[in-house]
Amino acid sequence: MEFKEVMKQRRAVNFFDPAKDVTDAQIKDIIETASLAPSGFNLQPWQVIVVKDKAKKETLRKVAWDQAKITEAPIVLIVLGDREGWKKGHNTFERDFAEMVKTGAMKKEQYDWFAGATKSIYGTTADQKMAFACKNAGFFGLSLMLAAKNVGLDSHPMDGLDVEGVKKAFNIPDQYWIPLLLAIGHFDKSKTLFPPKWRKSYNEIVVSF
Amino acid sequence: MEFKEVMKQRRAVNFFDPAKDVTDAQIKDIIETASLAPSGFNLQPWQVIVVKDKAKKETLRKVAWDQAKITEAPIVLIVLGDREGWKKGHNTFERDFAEMVKTGAMKKEQYDWFAGATKSIYGTTADQKMAFACKNAGFFGLSLMLAAKNVGLDSHPMDGLDVEGVKKAFNIPDQYWIPLLLAIGHFDKSKTLFPPKWRKSYNEIVVSF
Repeated sequence: MEFKEVMKQRRAVNFFDPAKDVTDAQIKDIIETASLAPSGFNLQPWQVIVVKDKAKKETLRKVAWDQAKITEAPIVLIVLGDREGWKKGHNTFERDFAEMVKTGAMKKEQYDWFAGATKSIYGTTADQKMAFACKNAGFFGLSLMLAAKNVGLDSHPMDGLDVEGVKKAFNIPDQYWIPLLLAIGHFDKSKTLFPPKWRKSYNEIVVSF
Repeated sequence: MEFKEVMKQRRAVNFFDPAKDVTDAQIKDIIETASLAPSGFNLQPWQVIVVKDKAKKETLRKVAWDQAKITEAPIVLIVLGDREGWKKGHNTFERDFAEMVKTGAMKKEQYDWFAGATKSIYGTTADQKMAFACKNAGFFGLSLMLAAKNVGLDSHPMDGLDVEGVKKAFNIPDQYWIPLLLAIGHFDKSKTLFPPKWRKSYNEIVVSF
């Protein structure tokens, strides 16, 4: 699909047809396309738990405002933002540096400089680390939604969740925050969506102080 | 352009051709396309400062790791994430509720329920508010990058900035965080980019615990 059409046609869909499945190949394609999203120093501070099993969706629904779409959609992704991607020894951090040495973008001796830079862009306080993790997970999250639309699927990003409850239910380590849940499936055509929501205009978005 | 081509061709470009301008119409188109990005309860907690003036770009560069691309790119966007979009009386909050009443998605009597729900998805602690603002600003930020690529422009998202310094230099109120700066322009074809960076595979992204 044309990029602008994907942007326009992506809607947060509240009603999923429980009879229509999403294939593993579609999910793989969506996640691989979204993996192209950018991130600070290419740290890619995101992971995904794919929830497909009926019982697990029921568990998730219980800690996510009892939203019906969680059990109605064939797939729900738990998107994780990694607050510790700057640490020496972290898989992605180490791989990232090794790949840059391989391409010639950095020299081996720059390891400590690189560690200092990643620490710096993550920031030092809890809220700064959260900002970095969630901004990047946001790049990845929107890519998932657009990639789903591009293969003819609908999605719904959800904020309504008890983060601690979801972490406990799915044994998610504390280094992760959960910026969103994303239901993916086929819109239930027996239902009607409200008209597309209003958006701020150019003049309402652009500011100066 | 095809959506997947936009995803593949978007690169963080370090070198901009200072001789090639970006028109106001292009910036308007990019921001209007990005305005279609989703957000929790459609609160659209993002604003943009468009930095085009030479002296202002020099000011910005001084508080953003002295990155040459800030003065070389014709345009730099300061993307803001709003940490107070849940508050009664906030412009977007009030407009959002009024629009939902207009379309029939909510009833007037649900004002307090709506205020409680937006407060809840923003969370109560400083880091939770940051997570919500930056996740949504991330949706918007990636949309800006893709929309730029779609009209033949290149971009570079920057994390390297002194947030407090930028806030001071541009009189940015404390309710905002700055998840990214985004340089937009034309790649300087006399320069060479490194090959596209590695990405985590599907199996490295999908986890269970």
